[in-house]
Amino acid sequence: MMKPYAALEQRFRRLSALNGALAVLGWDQSAMMPEGGAAARAEQMATLSVIHHEWLTDPALGDLIANAEAKAATLTDWQRANLREIARHWRHATALNPKLVEARSKAANACEMVWRKAKPANDFKAFAKAFAPVLALTREVAAAKAAAFGCQPYDALLDEYEPGGSAARIDALFADLGKFLPGFIDKALARQARQPAPLPLPGPFPVEQQRQAGLALMKALGFDFRHGRLDVSAHPFTGGVPQDVRITTRYSESDFTKALMGVLHETGHALYELGLPRRWAGQPVGEARGMVLHESQSLLVEMQVCRGEEFLTYATPLLRRIFGGKGAAWELGNLRRLYTRVQPSLIRVDADEATYPAHVILRYRLEQAMLAGDLAVNDLPDAWGDGMQSLLGVAVPDHAQGCLQDIHWPVGSIGYFPTYTLGALAAAQLFAAARAADAAIAPGIAKGDFKPLLRWLRQNVHGQASLLSTDDLLRQATGKPLGTAAFKAHLKARYLN
Amino acid sequence: MMKPYAALEQRFRRLSALNGALAVLGWDQSAMMPEGGAAARAEQMATLSVIHHEWLTDPALGDLIANAEAKAATLTDWQRANLREIARHWRHATALNPKLVEARSKAANACEMVWRKAKPANDFKAFAKAFAPVLALTREVAAAKAAAFGCQPYDALLDEYEPGGSAARIDALFADLGKFLPGFIDKALARQARQPAPLPLPGPFPVEQQRQAGLALMKALGFDFRHGRLDVSAHPFTGGVPQDVRITTRYSESDFTKALMGVLHETGHALYELGLPRRWAGQPVGEARGMVLHESQSLLVEMQVCRGEEFLTYATPLLRRIFGGKGAAWELGNLRRLYTRVQPSLIRVDADEATYPAHVILRYRLEQAMLAGDLAVNDLPDAWGDGMQSLLGVAVPDHAQGCLQDIHWPVGSIGYFPTYTLGALAAAQLFAAARAADAAIAPGIAKGDFKPLLRWLRQNVHGQASLLSTDDLLRQATGKPLGTAAFKAHLKARYLN
Repeated sequence: MMKPYAALEQRFRRLSALNGALAVLGWDQSAMMPEGGAAARAEQMATLSVIHHEWLTDPALGDLIANAEAKAATLTDWQRANLREIARHWRHATALNPKLVEARSKAANACEMVWRKAKPANDFKAFAKAFAPVLALTREVAAAKAAAFGCQPYDALLDEYEPGGSAARIDALFADLGKFLPGFIDKALARQARQPAPLPLPGPFPVEQQRQAGLALMKALGFDFRHGRLDVSAHPFTGGVPQDVRITTRYSESDFTKALMGVLHETGHALYELGLPRRWAGQPVGEARGMVLHESQSLLVEMQVCRGEEFLTYATPLLRRIFGGKGAAWELGNLRRLYTRVQPSLIRVDADEATYPAHVILRYRLEQAMLAGDLAVNDLPDAWGDGMQSLLGVAVPDHAQGCLQDIHWPVGSIGYFPTYTLGALAAAQLFAAARAADAAIAPGIAKGDFKPLLRWLRQNVHGQASLLSTDDLLRQATGKPLGTAAFKAHLKARYLN
Repeated sequence: MMKPYAALEQRFRRLSALNGALAVLGWDQSAMMPEGGAAARAEQMATLSVIHHEWLTDPALGDLIANAEAKAATLTDWQRANLREIARHWRHATALNPKLVEARSKAANACEMVWRKAKPANDFKAFAKAFAPVLALTREVAAAKAAAFGCQPYDALLDEYEPGGSAARIDALFADLGKFLPGFIDKALARQARQPAPLPLPGPFPVEQQRQAGLALMKALGFDFRHGRLDVSAHPFTGGVPQDVRITTRYSESDFTKALMGVLHETGHALYELGLPRRWAGQPVGEARGMVLHESQSLLVEMQVCRGEEFLTYATPLLRRIFGGKGAAWELGNLRRLYTRVQPSLIRVDADEATYPAHVILRYRLEQAMLAGDLAVNDLPDAWGDGMQSLLGVAVPDHAQGCLQDIHWPVGSIGYFPTYTLGALAAAQLFAAARAADAAIAPGIAKGDFKPLLRWLRQNVHGQASLLSTDDLLRQATGKPLGTAAFKAHLKARYLN
């Protein structure tokens, strides 16, 4: 008879294979599948999801976990951490009545379909009607998990995306940022106004050239094409499995910068997945730590590295060569100004790194209020408008550019938004520590040699997988738990100097 | 409580979704996956295959089938046929000891890997060592299934590919062909020698132009791109699911004809899948009848239609336009001569339609002898050389171009080869019946209008799915069971007139 811990590893290896199959099917659905395949694909994925749920809620699993925990002293550090993560997955899966899971999933699917039409039609009423049951059921989910875990409802949801995260920590960090950012943005805008306006890059930029530029930079950054691909989808994402990471982007022939920065952003996510320890592949402890560190890796590459002076020193001649660029618009200084433009705006996904946190803070406040029952769905547009006015000084002209812009709430994702900005804080903190730890990193970037940076990230972040909590990992890598200091210092250095 | 038949439909719908997931993962593995993803993919597919096997061998299934069969009188024709196919799948899955299934699968995987190196290295000894256990285990499988089904061992294997097929039927058909072909080939070669030799088409042919030609002809033939794709893989195949059919080809810039005929061949397979009745999607009766009819559809499109005078009348100017072709090599007569060249040769997959049956007949005889224990693996090369000499008059210079050329035996597929030639017979018989039934078909093809042909195939073949046996379907569609007359008439008309 197999020992309880070994039996758990075997079960989770099977679960991981099932998750991997779902990840490939999901990637294909977004990047390859013709529209007529949708119904069959939905049935394939639903079938695998049901098996996954059955396996993860098997009552025998609870006994195995209890028995393994009783003998935890005999396990290694990694095994103990694996057992902790196994228990966390099991706890989330078994905290809910299956009927509630199904009802929420159905309501979310229905709401997503309504939202896809309501957003372009600017139809808040239609959305609100479909969203009300999603919110009600999400509140039930949060309450049930909070009761099971002994925590606050918001924290119970947050734990799905950021294990161990808490609203109390976020409140403190966001309060600090909230004090800093408005004054900073004013100063950055004032300085920007004194500089020459960036010249637009003259297109068109053929898709194949954009793809070549993306592939060249991915390769330079250390993306291993024996273990991954670059493709196209309507909404860029990183999918697949750690041994086979699939990133996507979307191209516009009139502007290559968005697609390219999108590729670099997803490359950051991909390098994390590719750098997870092979020894623990297929086990929960071998997975990425959570969305905060995942976002930290995409933002470290996109925001910290690729919009910085060193990277642009390396990339500018490469881009000029690929796109046949000539003249003042293709000078390093102009590209830097294009890539570090600060501009309060309406749309989160298009926001620069200085104004982005305001978008997140607004959503965080509103979703907390909705979850607590303090904000009714019908009052969302007004609360949104007020928030955008006070946080960024912009007027919201319609719902499509307001509270209907994101997919998260329509599909019942509450607790996800803060991870974007916590990730930005972690990115700044990790990059500062990396540069301080290895003097070869900064000059390497300017030459297109990213090996020193990747080595540091592999050792301090990627290779750690889920062994530690996010804060413990940051303490080990940077000497401090997650804070705002490095992010503020980064913003001041880039936008005020 | 659900009625037995309804419960069976529900279970097989889930099995079909699982099969669909496996089909997409398999397509991705061949067409998209980077090499480093192989181990993870193998684990994903093995996990789903184990679930599939568990579901299909659930003892409760046997009871449900028995109970549903007891009330079969209350079912419709389609439901009764579905029950028959359900029972057939269950019978195949439960006929074997799981240990035998696993041992054979492992031996076949190991042998495939050895074969991939042994073939280019011309190393028969290495192959023979790995193949001996595959053959021994395949003989065990055949014996176990023969005992369970009450049939001959070879027929038990054949039934996996061609339900209801029998060596006795094949023997009679192949004996007839064996008498006809040598004399026919001599005459065809003599006539060919009196005609001008075909001029080679001057390349190179850029891959993108070849792809455009393939897409244009697929579309004309009725391939619905809302339900399918064309991609590239080392070995062309038709994959995916009926609502989302993925075909592949491979391109050589020096010769577009192979890739293009490959695309047309796979399009024939794809049209069958796309034309299966949606009402029965996800049920065994809704699947393609078997490999004979599947191959009949690919060969009907490739051999009967696309190498014929009418099709080339339509396609020649289109190809000239896409490839910028000019001069005598691009005249209709030259293309016809290129596409209908008879030439006894060593390699089955490169053989023309007149000499192809000889390749199949040889393999059929040899695999029967190996299965019966009358031919030892070590005697295979001599038997192969003798057979090629007597059937086609060619000398086999090495194993790579001899008995190591195909993947079928290395992976334990015995009983598959005859379906290629039975499919060629069925293709000729169906196409002759279609042309006789609708006078609009032939002139339609010459104009690039394939709707009349597709309409007849949808009604008489595709839409029938697995309702009837292959012979009953042919009787209904052509008035006769499978025979050689139409194929012989086709060859005489194309190569002797």
